[in-house]
Order: sequence, then C-alpha cells, then structure tokens
Amino acid sequence: MPAKSPVIVDLKFIPEEIEAALQGAFPGREVINLADPAHRGRDLSGIDYAVVWKSAPDLFSRAPDLKVVFSGGAGVDHVLTLPGLPEVPLVRFVDETLTRRMSEWVVMQCLLHLRQHRAYEALARKRQWRDLSQPEAADVTVGIMGMGVLGQDVAHKLAVMGFKVIGWSRTKRAVEDIETYDASGLDVFLGRTDFLVGLLPLTADTKGVFNTRLFSRLSRNGPFGAPVFINAGRGGSQVEADILECLDDGTLAAASLDVFEREPLSPESRFWDMPNVYVTPHVAASSDVKALFAHVEHQITRFESGLPLEHVVDKVAGY
Amino acid sequence: MPAKSPVIVDLKFIPEEIEAALQGAFPGREVINLADPAHRGRDLSGIDYAVVWKSAPDLFSRAPDLKVVFSGGAGVDHVLTLPGLPEVPLVRFVDETLTRRMSEWVVMQCLLHLRQHRAYEALARKRQWRDLSQPEAADVTVGIMGMGVLGQDVAHKLAVMGFKVIGWSRTKRAVEDIETYDASGLDVFLGRTDFLVGLLPLTADTKGVFNTRLFSRLSRNGPFGAPVFINAGRGGSQVEADILECLDDGTLAAASLDVFEREPLSPESRFWDMPNVYVTPHVAASSDVKALFAHVEHQITRFESGLPLEHVVDKVAGY
Ligand SMILES: NC(=O)c1ccc[n+]([C@@H]2O[C@H](COP(=O)([O-])OP(=O)(O)OC[C@H]3O[C@@H](n4cnc5c(N)ncnc54)[C@H](OP(=O)(O)O)[C@@H]3O)[C@@H](O)[C@H]2O)c1
Ligand SMILES: NC(=O)c1ccc[n+]([C@@H]2O[C@H](COP(=O)([O-])OP(=O)(O)OC[C@H]3O[C@@H](n4cnc5c(N)ncnc54)[C@H](OP(=O)(O)O)[C@@H]3O)[C@@H](O)[C@H]2O)c1
Repeated sequence: MPAKSPVIVDLKFIPEEIEAALQGAFPGREVINLADPAHRGRDLSGIDYAVVWKSAPDLFSRAPDLKVVFSGGAGVDHVLTLPGLPEVPLVRFVDETLTRRMSEWVVMQCLLHLRQHRAYEALARKRQWRDLSQPEAADVTVGIMGMGVLGQDVAHKLAVMGFKVIGWSRTKRAVEDIETYDASGLDVFLGRTDFLVGLLPLTADTKGVFNTRLFSRLSRNGPFGAPVFINAGRGGSQVEADILECLDDGTLAAASLDVFEREPLSPESRFWDMPNVYVTPHVAASSDVKALFAHVEHQITRFESGLPLEHVVDKVAGY
Repeated sequence: MPAKSPVIVDLKFIPEEIEAALQGAFPGREVINLADPAHRGRDLSGIDYAVVWKSAPDLFSRAPDLKVVFSGGAGVDHVLTLPGLPEVPLVRFVDETLTRRMSEWVVMQCLLHLRQHRAYEALARKRQWRDLSQPEAADVTVGIMGMGVLGQDVAHKLAVMGFKVIGWSRTKRAVEDIETYDASGLDVFLGRTDFLVGLLPLTADTKGVFNTRLFSRLSRNGPFGAPVFINAGRGGSQVEADILECLDDGTLAAASLDVFEREPLSPESRFWDMPNVYVTPHVAASSDVKALFAHVEHQITRFESGLPLEHVVDKVAGY
C-alpha cells in the first residue's frame, strides 16, 4: 500500500487553536502546516490535499498536483479567486458547530435590536432608571436572504424565539413553518421585512446586492419605524457607502455587521463607534478547527474509498 | 341584573400604555384608573376588583370590599406586603406574551456572555480587529433556579440555542429533555452550573439566597473559568454587597441584573458602569397591558359564572 498523501494546512486562524487541533488529527498522514517556518520553500508537488483559508496566492503553483481542495470555512469566495485554482473538486466546510455558532450570533443581534440594548446602555451610562415601550419578537418580521444550511437553522431558531420569519433564496426552499420566496419574490419579501438578515455567499450575482435601492424597499411598518440590516454572509455583498448613507438619513434604523468589503475593517471606518451599529470582526461563526479537521479526514476517507465527496462547490454558481 | 362592579386599576406602568390598553377593555364595566386625578379621594367601597402593581399603601383601606385582587405582574411580593391585604383570592398574571419576553431577555443575556460581547465592544472602541477564542453554547451549562412558568420556557429556548440546561426548584419538576433537581439537590446543581439564572419569586425562603456562599459553590470548570450570575426574578433574592465582592475577587466573572434590592437602582450604585455587568431597569418581562386586561377580564368572567379562578397565589408559600 502506498504511503498516504500528506495534507497541506494553510489556515489564517488563531495559530494556537490550529496547533491544538492538529494533536491526533490525520492519523498515519503527514501534516504540512504552512504556518510552520520549517516548511517555507518546501516542495509541495505530488501532494493530494490542501485545507485552506485565505491562502497565500502562490499556493496552487507550489502544490500543482492537488486532487481535492478543502475550504476552511463555509464560504469559498476566498478560494475561487485564488490564482491557478486547479480543476479538481472544491469541498466547503459544513458542520453543526459552525451552523450553531452562526445562529447564536444572528439570534443575539436580532435580540439586541429588539430589546433596545444600545438605548438601555445609554441610559445606564447616565445612571437613569427608565423603561422603554417594548415590542415583543412577534411584532417583528425577520427576513433572511440566503436560505442554505445557515439560513435555515437561523430561521428555525428565530421562530422558536417568537419572531415572524420569512426567507428568500435563488430557488424556492421548502422550510417547515417558514414562508419562503424565490428570486422572483424579492419585492414582496423586502416589503414585509423589518429586520433583514444577510446569509448569502459572495458570487458574481450577490456582489453589492445590499445597497440603497434594496434598503429603501424594506418595510417601514415595524415597531421601530425603520428597518435594521444584519449581515453575516460576506462583505462583498454590501455597499458600505450606501449603508452609511441609509443610517444617516434614516432609511435604516440600525445595523449589525460581521463582514466588510475590506477586512480587516480600516481603523478609520465610521462603523466602529456608531451608536446604532454593532461591529464584530468576522467571527459570527468561526470554524471550530477540531471539527474542521474531522470533516476533512472524513471526506478524504470517502474519497480514497471511491465514495463521492460531500459538500462539493458548484464553481459555476460560485457557492 | 345588578350593575357590574367597577374595576380599580392602580398600575405603576407607562401611563400612555395603560390609557391605550383601556380603550375597549372591560366592556359594560366602569374602570377607575387611580392615575386619573379625577378619582383622587373617590369612595372605593363596594367595589369587587382591583388590578394592582406597586399600589399606594392605603389602597385596601380605601377599597375594603374587594372580592378578588389581581397582580399586574407575575410576581406578587409587592402585593403580599401591602398593609391590609384582604382574605380574598390573589390572582397573578400568567400570559404567553410575558413568558416570551422573559425568554428573550434571558437568552439574550446568556448569548451576550457566551459571545464575549463586552470584550468585542472594548476592541471596537479601540478600533481593533481581532478574534477571540470562542466557545460554543454546548460548552456552557446554564443552571436555572426557579422552574415555574418562566423558568421552563427559558430552559426550552436555551436548549434549542444549544446550551446545556439544568433546572432547580422546590419540588422536582419533570421538564422534557432538561435534567432537574429539587431543593435537596442544590449542591450538585450548583457544582455543574456555569451560568446561573435566577427566576425565583421573592418569598421568606428565597430572600437573600443569591449570596457569596452560594456563588462560591458554582462551577469553575466552564470555558470562562468563573461563573456568571443572571437575575430576572426579584432583587430581594440577591445580596448586592456579595455580588460586588464576588465580581471584585473573581468568584463571579460577570453578571446581568434586571432586578435590585431597592428599585429604582440608586444613581450611586457601582453596577451601572461595571465592565462585566449588564443592568436593565426591571424590564425583562414587562407586562403587556392589553394582555393583562384581557386576562383579568377572562378571570372575572369565570368568577362571576361560578368557575374557579386560575393562577391563584398560595399566600402561605408566598407565590
Ligand atoms: N461571518 C461568518 O463567520 C461566516 C461563517 C460561515 C459562513 N459565512 C457565509 O455564509 C454563507 C452561507 O453559508 P451556507 O452554508 O448557508 O451556504 P449554502 O448552504 O450554500 O446556502 C447559500 C444560500 O444562498 C442562496 N443564494 C446563493 N446565491 C444566490 C443568489 N444569487 N440569489 C439568491 N439566493 C442566492 C442559495 O440559494 P439556493 O437555496 O437556491 O441554492 C442558498 O439558499 C457562506 O457562503 C459564507 O459566505 C459567514
Ligand atoms: N424581571 C421581570 O421583569 C419579571 C417579570 C415577571 C416575573 N418575574 C419574577 O419571576 C418569578 C417567577 O415567575 P413564574 O411565573 O415562573 O413563577 P412560578 O410559575 O410560580 O414559578 C416559581 C418557581 O420558583 C420555585 N420556587 C419558589 N420558591 C422556592 C424555594 N424556596 N426554593 C426553590 N424553588 C422555589 C418554584 O418551585 P416549585 O416548582 O416547586 O413550585 C417554581 O419552580 C416571579 O415570581 C417574579 O418575581 C420577573
């Protein structure tokens, strides 16, 4: 039996978490962690597998014989744009821990806006004890754009919390107890949406969709009089100049942004300290590295036994 | 048929919400809203019903003929301590809108602590883009003290969000998928609890239970190394000097407090601006006034048709 092919690991995550997760991972197989200076300049030809997140642009020229590329996250825009991506399957990360973390983040953001958290924080800074008129979740319709693995879990959990939830995706998805729209239903969907949640992949079609034209079609009949925009998909889908303008002129009441057109977000950005904006540094659903390696190992085992790979990306659709 | 008895309304809520909710409420029955100066000094004898929240202490001497007293909230400690409480049924407010609002607040607080919200806010103030090691909900055990109407709904929703959940109450409650303890199981319960949620009524037995002795029995094995205290029951159940001491010496990592020993919380309190404490002004589950009046009307109809009243308080147990 030939020796098992090594796995290249090129992940721009927290280095200690990668080191810890590599303990005991990929038994019987060498791991080439490119963060380790020992591998600088190493010959990567003849290697079958790479697990990547925000790789160096020369990865595919250094490793010309890959048979499968694994994305370190659920999104693959960062891989599809790398130069020299080989014509081999690209597998994305789909996992319960990732899905649950995304739902934690989105549910928390919806509750922060619903429960007027920033207003109460402002009162607390002034040491003022005062209760505000409080709508409940059932008074708010959350509209989710992107009803894939993440959008569907978020929808279910928001519904359990009492929100009205509707969903929109390219093709119509049948999701239990949730009213859904396909691409052609966008206008009706937006007109009903008080809190808009973005969980779209970044593709040619979704680039810049979150813009003034879209925001101005959202419902203004919700309990806060103007809509809220919450994005945890990809920053490339949003037009940040438009978000700022819409926050300034009241087209949007507030926003929660985990992703940005350019990351890291510039220290100059106005978003950092706007009173009605929550900013997090692309951490809504950081990959659990142990779970990621388990998923890659599982897919490699399938691949080497001749079974079809799962979660293979459609490179034409871009997700 | 004799005229229907009027209803006394004495609620220290947002006055406009009471006015709005009274439109169309109690058809065929006079409403005496004591907030209205016209009723100052009015003779209240012969009246059967009163709906009260933080009443003036002379209410029961002014209205000596009440047949049923309705609490404007789920808790009744504020009624039981009023002088001259008549020997008639005391009905508390139990309603879906109230239950759901409480769960919104508790789930939000648990997520704020889990997702290190204050740490990310501090980074944002410094305009720093940095991700923190992020445990997921399944890494945290939330222990709920008080598994009544509110505690059970909170338990269910926290479990859906992925938290491990355990419950404690005077008598053992069988709650689907949740491990529960009765009074005698307190030690084991505390030793497993990373986030402690208080949803107890204030009674002679629960006064001051949340103290240093209890906090120091909580788990220190959770992902944040020290436990978090979240209280939305009653402030009288907590010893605030102890909470401050435990936050200062690391016995507690953080807290969320909606209720206080003395309300309104004094502007001098250190709680207002502690970096690891969230303060809200007793608004976790404010009563929806429309729903409250519908509930009172429904109970009066039952009472006048000879049916037993629901949600009657056990005055000996105190809840
Ligand atoms: N912020 C973070 O920490 C973080 C973490 C993980 C993932 N993400 C982002 O979240 C995205 C979604 O992840 P997922 O696992 O849910 O992906 P998924 O299962 O592939 O779902 C994508 C959804 O978007 C819809 N969609 C794609 N292109 C569309 C278009 N042009 N118009 C309308 N709908 C379109 C899809 O429609 P169909 O149902 O018709 O295919 C599908 O419902 C990822 O691509 C990634 O960018 C962010
Ligand atoms: N902050 C707010 O906005 C807000 C709003 C509404 C209510 N509240 C508070 O929340 C409290 C709970 O409401 P609820 O509707 O859930 O009440 P409930 O249905 O009466 O439940 C009370 C729970 O506490 C337990 N309990 C009472 N005394 C105990 C003791 N000495 N030792 C151990 N467990 C004890 C009960 O045990 P058993 O199951 O054995 O009876 C029961 O599980 C209210 O009393 C009120 O003070 C606060």
